[in-house]
Amino acid sequence: IVSANMPVYIIEDKKFGMRAFGNYNEGIGKVLRYGAYDKEVLSRLKWMRDELYPTMKAALDEARKDKGGINFKAIIQQALHMGDECHNRYVAATSKFMNEIAPYLVKADVSKDAFNRVWDFMKNNNFFTLNIGMASAKAMTLAAHNIKYSTIVTVLTRNGTDAGIWVSGLGNRWFTAPSPVPKGVFFPGFTQDDANPDLGDSSITETAGFGGFAMAAAPAVVSWVGGSVEFAVENTKNMYNITYAKHKYFTIPYLSFQGTPTGVDIRLVLKTGITPTINTGIAHKKAGVGQVGAGIVKFPFELFKDAFKAYVETYGA
Amino acid sequence: IVSANMPVYIIEDKKFGMRAFGNYNEGIGKVLRYGAYDKEVLSRLKWMRDELYPTMKAALDEARKDKGGINFKAIIQQALHMGDECHNRYVAATSKFMNEIAPYLVKADVSKDAFNRVWDFMKNNNFFTLNIGMASAKAMTLAAHNIKYSTIVTVLTRNGTDAGIWVSGLGNRWFTAPSPVPKGVFFPGFTQDDANPDLGDSSITETAGFGGFAMAAAPAVVSWVGGSVEFAVENTKNMYNITYAKHKYFTIPYLSFQGTPTGVDIRLVLKTGITPTINTGIAHKKAGVGQVGAGIVKFPFELFKDAFKAYVETYGA
Repeated sequence: IVSANMPVYIIEDKKFGMRAFGNYNEGIGKVLRYGAYDKEVLSRLKWMRDELYPTMKAALDEARKDKGGINFKAIIQQALHMGDECHNRYVAATSKFMNEIAPYLVKADVSKDAFNRVWDFMKNNNFFTLNIGMASAKAMTLAAHNIKYSTIVTVLTRNGTDAGIWVSGLGNRWFTAPSPVPKGVFFPGFTQDDANPDLGDSSITETAGFGGFAMAAAPAVVSWVGGSVEFAVENTKNMYNITYAKHKYFTIPYLSFQGTPTGVDIRLVLKTGITPTINTGIAHKKAGVGQVGAGIVKFPFELFKDAFKAYVETYGA
Repeated sequence: IVSANMPVYIIEDKKFGMRAFGNYNEGIGKVLRYGAYDKEVLSRLKWMRDELYPTMKAALDEARKDKGGINFKAIIQQALHMGDECHNRYVAATSKFMNEIAPYLVKADVSKDAFNRVWDFMKNNNFFTLNIGMASAKAMTLAAHNIKYSTIVTVLTRNGTDAGIWVSGLGNRWFTAPSPVPKGVFFPGFTQDDANPDLGDSSITETAGFGGFAMAAAPAVVSWVGGSVEFAVENTKNMYNITYAKHKYFTIPYLSFQGTPTGVDIRLVLKTGITPTINTGIAHKKAGVGQVGAGIVKFPFELFKDAFKAYVETYGA
């Protein structure tokens, strides 16, 4: 949910001229993006609009003047060497972003009180840069979209009832199937029975070749999303079977600095029967409760079958 | 080399009342601690004394007033989950330290120019917190020293000609042997032929259970010190054979969150023939050149044999 009153980041892909947008991350638990909307949620959102945004804007304006903005792709690249997979673990990316932004906050002459509140908010929210990462992933995948004949998946997403994909060569046509329920780790007081079918835009990170696809880079993420370290490594290895390329810049030290598996190819999904596995936050199935855990989810095979059928109809067998 | 004109950090172990000290890290390459002492080195040291130190002191004083100081043990703990092993990789620890210190720099009202120069220095020196980590390791190992009957090694060090150890139950008696020459990766223009025998205090980190002993936590460190990722993991596994405990707080995600191998026991070294393997910076054998690379080194077996002999003489077989 992004309303007209919500500030957004602007992410630019300077090479291909693409632009994507991300709102500010609220944190975990009782947050709007997982369906919570009580007073606590609204007052946080108001603070984010009234103090966080103007403070960050002042700093980001300084960064833009100084060096054209913050290079978040470089931050993702480093974070993958620092135990983040950059979907459900943004500990290193957020820390590095804070290192980048601090001198611009100082340069922008924000008040000490504003500095302290904004700094504490970032420090206590390891997911602060998730939304920048998501918008970065969107800007990256946009460049691969609408390429004639391309069988690469450029959107992987879920809305709480359906999971859907776009395929580059098939334009903006949706292929959808019921959204699976994530299996995962729950916050205190919640169980698997509380989980809603998977939802959110965040799997754009896996679309771009990180997140669940880079779990081998982030063994500590299993304490958040569940599974074992072996599973995390296996998942990354598995994704090489259905992706077109190894990322040139995003590499995984534990796999001897191989690039992350990037660009799901519907032909490879059809051939292997393997579908994209992402990691995800889990919303409560009752509206108003918010995020209750985090886990793992596999995209349904039929999406890719339907897309392949449409591809054959469009381009011939 | 620490002279009377050099500022130091004070690290306190609040549980056991131990105190240790570390000077400020100069960076890599042409630096005093690797034997370089030309104008560039001296002018950097002067800046460190005249601006870096007063700026940091002002901020650290604020941190002490606010919460008793910066908890660097917690930073090491997090950094081990962020791809640092905390001897030759301090990327995450330095980033986290910067996150901690920023609000205190702001609170201390340091000038914008001082903030910028200090911030840039930290940002461009991933080893900035190495010396804090070394002093932390010293404070930790001091608590284990001078325990009657203890066979635990509490000092592992090298001075460029000799490698030496202390054993807890044998007090401050040195056991020494010629220092080995590290094998490693060299900065452009230098080769293995330029390497001096190993030197420095930094192997106090391995003594305390991190650094080379935690290499499995830091696959990216191999691009700095050489070897393969498999070697890094094997080295940590190997160190379990000669250490008394798995660390309670320092854990390694890739080894399913096992504690790091901690506390070299001379009895286990004698029994297995395995000696501590550390990672290290490499100095040029010619004085004045400075650091020319980084690598791996094994402590000589005879140190432990001599210490064991002395132990038997002291306490009986």
